[in-house]
Amino acid sequence: MTNNLEITLSTSKKTKPQPDQLGFGKYFTDHMFIMDYATEQGWHSPRIVPYQPITLDPAAKVFHYGQTVFEGLKAYRTSDNRILLFRPGKNFERLNHSNNRLSIPPIDENFLLDALKKLVEVDQDWIPSAEGTSLYIRPFIISTEAALGVAPSHNYQFMIILSPVGSYYAEGIHPVKINVENHFVRAVPGGTGAAKTAGNYAAGLKAQEVASDRGYSQVLWLDGVERKYIEEVGSMNVFFKINGEVVTPVLNGSILDGITRNSVITLLKHWGVPVVERKLAIDELYNSYVNGTLEEAFGTGTAAVISPIGELFWDTHQMKINQGQTGELSKRVYDTLTGIQNGTVADPFGWVVEVKS
Amino acid sequence: MTNNLEITLSTSKKTKPQPDQLGFGKYFTDHMFIMDYATEQGWHSPRIVPYQPITLDPAAKVFHYGQTVFEGLKAYRTSDNRILLFRPGKNFERLNHSNNRLSIPPIDENFLLDALKKLVEVDQDWIPSAEGTSLYIRPFIISTEAALGVAPSHNYQFMIILSPVGSYYAEGIHPVKINVENHFVRAVPGGTGAAKTAGNYAAGLKAQEVASDRGYSQVLWLDGVERKYIEEVGSMNVFFKINGEVVTPVLNGSILDGITRNSVITLLKHWGVPVVERKLAIDELYNSYVNGTLEEAFGTGTAAVISPIGELFWDTHQMKINQGQTGELSKRVYDTLTGIQNGTVADPFGWVVEVKS
Ligand SMILES: Cc1ncc(COP(=O)(O)O)c(C=O)c1O
Ligand SMILES: Cc1ncc(COP(=O)(O)O)c(C=O)c1O
Repeated sequence: MTNNLEITLSTSKKTKPQPDQLGFGKYFTDHMFIMDYATEQGWHSPRIVPYQPITLDPAAKVFHYGQTVFEGLKAYRTSDNRILLFRPGKNFERLNHSNNRLSIPPIDENFLLDALKKLVEVDQDWIPSAEGTSLYIRPFIISTEAALGVAPSHNYQFMIILSPVGSYYAEGIHPVKINVENHFVRAVPGGTGAAKTAGNYAAGLKAQEVASDRGYSQVLWLDGVERKYIEEVGSMNVFFKINGEVVTPVLNGSILDGITRNSVITLLKHWGVPVVERKLAIDELYNSYVNGTLEEAFGTGTAAVISPIGELFWDTHQMKINQGQTGELSKRVYDTLTGIQNGTVADPFGWVVEVKS
Repeated sequence: MTNNLEITLSTSKKTKPQPDQLGFGKYFTDHMFIMDYATEQGWHSPRIVPYQPITLDPAAKVFHYGQTVFEGLKAYRTSDNRILLFRPGKNFERLNHSNNRLSIPPIDENFLLDALKKLVEVDQDWIPSAEGTSLYIRPFIISTEAALGVAPSHNYQFMIILSPVGSYYAEGIHPVKINVENHFVRAVPGGTGAAKTAGNYAAGLKAQEVASDRGYSQVLWLDGVERKYIEEVGSMNVFFKINGEVVTPVLNGSILDGITRNSVITLLKHWGVPVVERKLAIDELYNSYVNGTLEEAFGTGTAAVISPIGELFWDTHQMKINQGQTGELSKRVYDTLTGIQNGTVADPFGWVVEVKS
């Protein structure tokens, strides 16, 4: 791969949306990063160009066989006007793990970090500064070879697009109501659940619709083998505080290794709060609810950071958690993590990476 | 949906490939069919246009969340110069089943059949007539809304592209060698295995690579729950003749309901050959091999029609089936089915549908 990052600046600038209109992933900035792959050349021609449509042959493999991976992270504008990324190296490390599972050639992680920093620098005017807002960063790879044989593609495009975002959940930091899915399955060990790839999300749409129809904003997935063990929520990992101890499902090959999850575990250990990664059965959770030891529940993910869970619906059981209010520990984790991300709280872990502004 | 199918003919024609150069899905004809969907309008603007690239926003949902389905069928040129489709209605019926699983709005199946006939008529010069060749037809739907929220798209495109093809397998009708996959999983009940959607194929690429490296051309999948029951091959269903009886895995929600599979079962019943759909464990199959009752094995699918299996490799066991030769029943099924498709054998089932030529 050549390290010559070519930059073509846009001659016209789009109008920026109002901070209260942002939503999630609806608006995109003036530029994007692209890099191509061909078997004979490897990854080549990295470039920053005006945000523009992609033109592909209708036979491009991504449309038919879904050979694609993506990532998601954020850039934050601090009150003293600096720009911070949160653990970006972890995202590119995970990208390469996903690539490996999807038979996509790996990419130099250091180069990607440099390219991302440059892109964010170019579009820095787009980073919103109102509370709860940030610049969402979406790196992704698509297979572009125009051939219908089921086999890894010989050509790919890697891209990064940027989107100024508000809060992911309409409800904001308020607790969400989540439906425990009994019928549909998202992933299974041996499958692609631990990779960040399109098919996992397509598989989840139907259950998400069922949940929405019942008034629940998200789905909690159970394992696909025994339909018993808690896995994760739509696009979040999940934590429960039971009798003073925090429990999160252990990474078993079908759960995404969330970067927020990893950060929360580190933070809790740092604070001396007992935290354990283990298998957690839905009936064990229900029993802890019935006997009053289920104290808090929250989801973790880049989009929402921390999302307190106010209610779980499982089978015929409605579990109101912490009277439907944000728990004390959930709040403390949220404040600390978002504080580190925004630069208002000290970062003892070396998590934030500054971008030139 | 308007029934006004607009046709724009190409002003230039591509050079057609030589019949012995066709391969599978490498060349595409002069035209394609497109139709759009928007929530407010439904499916609309059906049109036949010159084969052309698709232009999409980089945030189009298909690139990120894999909300897409496809189909595969063939048109055959008979020796008396007619054009036959094989059970096309079944493909559009299955398309709507896949749509339902992927939260994509259904399409009028009769309209699709009319549109397909028209497209094949327009590009009829592309239907090859050499033995084993045909025109492969690929209908597919992609989600085109440019928004990163994980939710069903508000916009789609349905397309049909056509590709003149030779034999899918380099080996032709000769028996293939297949690796039984013990580690990776393709699908699980509650997931998307019974739908024809991109993610299932992406999930299978890695195992396919492992198999190829070991000298096997395809993967035989076991169920994702017990890792024990035979499911299907890469893009084929699978049949075994054991002690005079033909066995094929029962449709369990994670296997594709293959149209060739359905046709083979019908044909065998018509002939009075005992055939049963049931769970079949890999160790039962191995035992039948050891005690000499495993007589034949073959895969079924649109691409290969019938693909005799000459060898299975499972764990540490190499099973040579019928001395690695095409079995008698496999051959009879192959000859009859391809004969019906090519119009050289009578079609007592009403399977073929003629296109105006
Ligand atoms: C399926 C899934 N689980 C969990 C997460 C959380 O991961 P992270 O904390 O790295 O954003 C995500 C991504 O946002 C996800 O898509
Ligand atoms: C996974 C899978 N199984 C089986 C088949 C066979 O189905 P059909 O006979 O309808 O082509 C296919 C498609 O060709 C497939 O993709």
